[in-house]
Amino acid sequence: MDRLSLYRSLARPADTRILYYVVDGIGGLPPGAGGKTELEAAATPTFDRLANEGSTGLVTPVAAGVAPGSGPGHLALFGFDPLETTVGRGVLAALGVGFDLRPGDVAARINFCTLDADGTVADRRAGRIGSEVGAALAERLDRIDLGSGVECTVRHVKGYRACVVFRGDGLDGRVADTDPQAIGVAPLAPRALDPAADTAAGLARAFIAAAVALLADEEDANGVLLRGFDTYVPLPSFADLYGVKPAAVAAYPMYRGVARAVGMTVFAAEDTVESRVDLTRTAMQDHDFAFVHFKATDSRGEDGDFDAKVEQIEIADQTLARLLELDFDVVMVTGDHSTPATYRAHSWHPVPVLIHGPHCRANASRAGFGETACITGALGPLRGTDVLPLVLAQAGRIRKYGA
Amino acid sequence: MDRLSLYRSLARPADTRILYYVVDGIGGLPPGAGGKTELEAAATPTFDRLANEGSTGLVTPVAAGVAPGSGPGHLALFGFDPLETTVGRGVLAALGVGFDLRPGDVAARINFCTLDADGTVADRRAGRIGSEVGAALAERLDRIDLGSGVECTVRHVKGYRACVVFRGDGLDGRVADTDPQAIGVAPLAPRALDPAADTAAGLARAFIAAAVALLADEEDANGVLLRGFDTYVPLPSFADLYGVKPAAVAAYPMYRGVARAVGMTVFAAEDTVESRVDLTRTAMQDHDFAFVHFKATDSRGEDGDFDAKVEQIEIADQTLARLLELDFDVVMVTGDHSTPATYRAHSWHPVPVLIHGPHCRANASRAGFGETACITGALGPLRGTDVLPLVLAQAGRIRKYGA
Repeated sequence: MDRLSLYRSLARPADTRILYYVVDGIGGLPPGAGGKTELEAAATPTFDRLANEGSTGLVTPVAAGVAPGSGPGHLALFGFDPLETTVGRGVLAALGVGFDLRPGDVAARINFCTLDADGTVADRRAGRIGSEVGAALAERLDRIDLGSGVECTVRHVKGYRACVVFRGDGLDGRVADTDPQAIGVAPLAPRALDPAADTAAGLARAFIAAAVALLADEEDANGVLLRGFDTYVPLPSFADLYGVKPAAVAAYPMYRGVARAVGMTVFAAEDTVESRVDLTRTAMQDHDFAFVHFKATDSRGEDGDFDAKVEQIEIADQTLARLLELDFDVVMVTGDHSTPATYRAHSWHPVPVLIHGPHCRANASRAGFGETACITGALGPLRGTDVLPLVLAQAGRIRKYGA
Repeated sequence: MDRLSLYRSLARPADTRILYYVVDGIGGLPPGAGGKTELEAAATPTFDRLANEGSTGLVTPVAAGVAPGSGPGHLALFGFDPLETTVGRGVLAALGVGFDLRPGDVAARINFCTLDADGTVADRRAGRIGSEVGAALAERLDRIDLGSGVECTVRHVKGYRACVVFRGDGLDGRVADTDPQAIGVAPLAPRALDPAADTAAGLARAFIAAAVALLADEEDANGVLLRGFDTYVPLPSFADLYGVKPAAVAAYPMYRGVARAVGMTVFAAEDTVESRVDLTRTAMQDHDFAFVHFKATDSRGEDGDFDAKVEQIEIADQTLARLLELDFDVVMVTGDHSTPATYRAHSWHPVPVLIHGPHCRANASRAGFGETACITGALGPLRGTDVLPLVLAQAGRIRKYGA
């Protein structure tokens, strides 16, 4: 029996409330041998109390040595094997802005870019145009009509980012990125990675030609780069699989997208403590599982700013203290991956996790929530897909297997 | 996606130098409850420093409770699942002596043995004849011509050991060993384990008959025992899979063989510190990955000589101190299995591992490199196949998975 079938068959309803708190990129590294990581350096009284009262461990999201993107990292935390279940960035973007994707739609991410007179890329992010400009450009491209019974929809995401959805019969999204990942060269032509994707690649070529014509008079953003093409295939829903009523509270489209991909109700938060807490309170009025996403820890890690990441971890901790006022039975804290400030990128290092619930074993260490203490945590080393079942079990939501 | 496809798809070139140091049978046991293991008893300042600055863990090469042979132990360290990928001892022997095996060749190990007048085995190792005698005998058997379009080649390995390779159309190496594993009984006839191997079994019978005729006048070595039959099927190459330029420095044919099986360039070392260091220096002039094998720790463990194994671990540590002068970015130390002196054989106990690189988490213990300290190492418990990806990640050679 595969994992999902196992957990689906064992799902048991219960009157318990779960907080699933993902602090993006929370795991880190010491600045030098023997030093403290960002999480260990931060003052985190709430994390520490929950860790000492609960059980901790270290999570490998995908596989040894593999740094996960946000998509695979979250899919693993939602119980899906990220090597078997992949969702392209285009689909996540379209879902993330609330677009009503239908099975078979092909979606891609758009980056507005700046092209030189000779057609080569001068700036892959169009001078990082603001969201107002980006939204207006997306609206203009939404008018593109490719004919031949195909619907083409463009939606703005954030800043220089947008997404395009092609809807028609028999489309296949196995199309290569057009972003050359370099400046001074021309964008790549959309290329089918499989003969079945020839039609979609042709639509993408026609779309790009029309977009460049429409944007010709724009100074900063006169081109588009497409990436993360994928066909939308709905995943089994979280509610069906696990018998919970899940809500997602997230400030960024990407995380709203991955939540919608598994059928969560999405509450679009502002990037503030108040907004996250208020929306979680609202969500928990008619849901029993809150996935709350905290972004800035990852961003400061990618900036390479150790102290700023420490500060954001402290804000994440303070946010949790407020969220706890909403009376959860089980609380989980982890990240979708590590983002050490010294590494300036998502990394492969296992991610600290804590689970606080009514049936917790004690950890060997009482040193609070940190990478080193988690080595001897009661949960031990975990795969990403192990986290959710352990939380559901604490919440009385998994029945016994076999007689 | 399977493991190898995953890591192949994520391989990223980098300008980093890796030392992959395998101290054979390094893991051990205390002579009595509560005592120190061989590794813990040894003075190993270099291992200890790297362990305290880096991350440690404990490796299970194959599966819980399973003592691996050298082949599976090394294949796991090279990233191959040793339950899916097997390479017969005959193939490893032929590769190990530098024979140019071609796909479809069938190879077997030869032990020269002593037969009594009635044809029963008197000594399975022919009085442990020396390499000079063994080499002369192998040369004599190399003249055997089996006709019918089959090439038959014999090469000496070491002491009483040699190997034979049959080359012809449609051969299949699923043939049972002829070594009865006992004295006073006749060698077994080569027996096909699958109808497809009937031809190879027949060739082996003809070869043995010809060998016994040629050796009739020899006192010590008048017979041959064949074992480890296998068909040569090339493995994916280490360079293709991981994007490194690998070299192997090993003093024993077996380890050269397993290195050649994955396409490493082999440097045949003498069994001395100087030779290992000199050849590694040479190898690193145009390679970026050095697999260096240290044998004597395993041999002294198999002898059951605790103190002699301690001494060899100290020599392995001193060798490492010298190797570090060659400027590696990432250093890994482990064994292919444990060989506790009290157990006198390969054992199933997890093997201490240390990885020293630029992005290491701290271990919970600062007690240096030893079995007990490794329990709370930052790498945690690992599968054998996890070691290489963690090393490649430290070396900046694995890209992010998914968006």
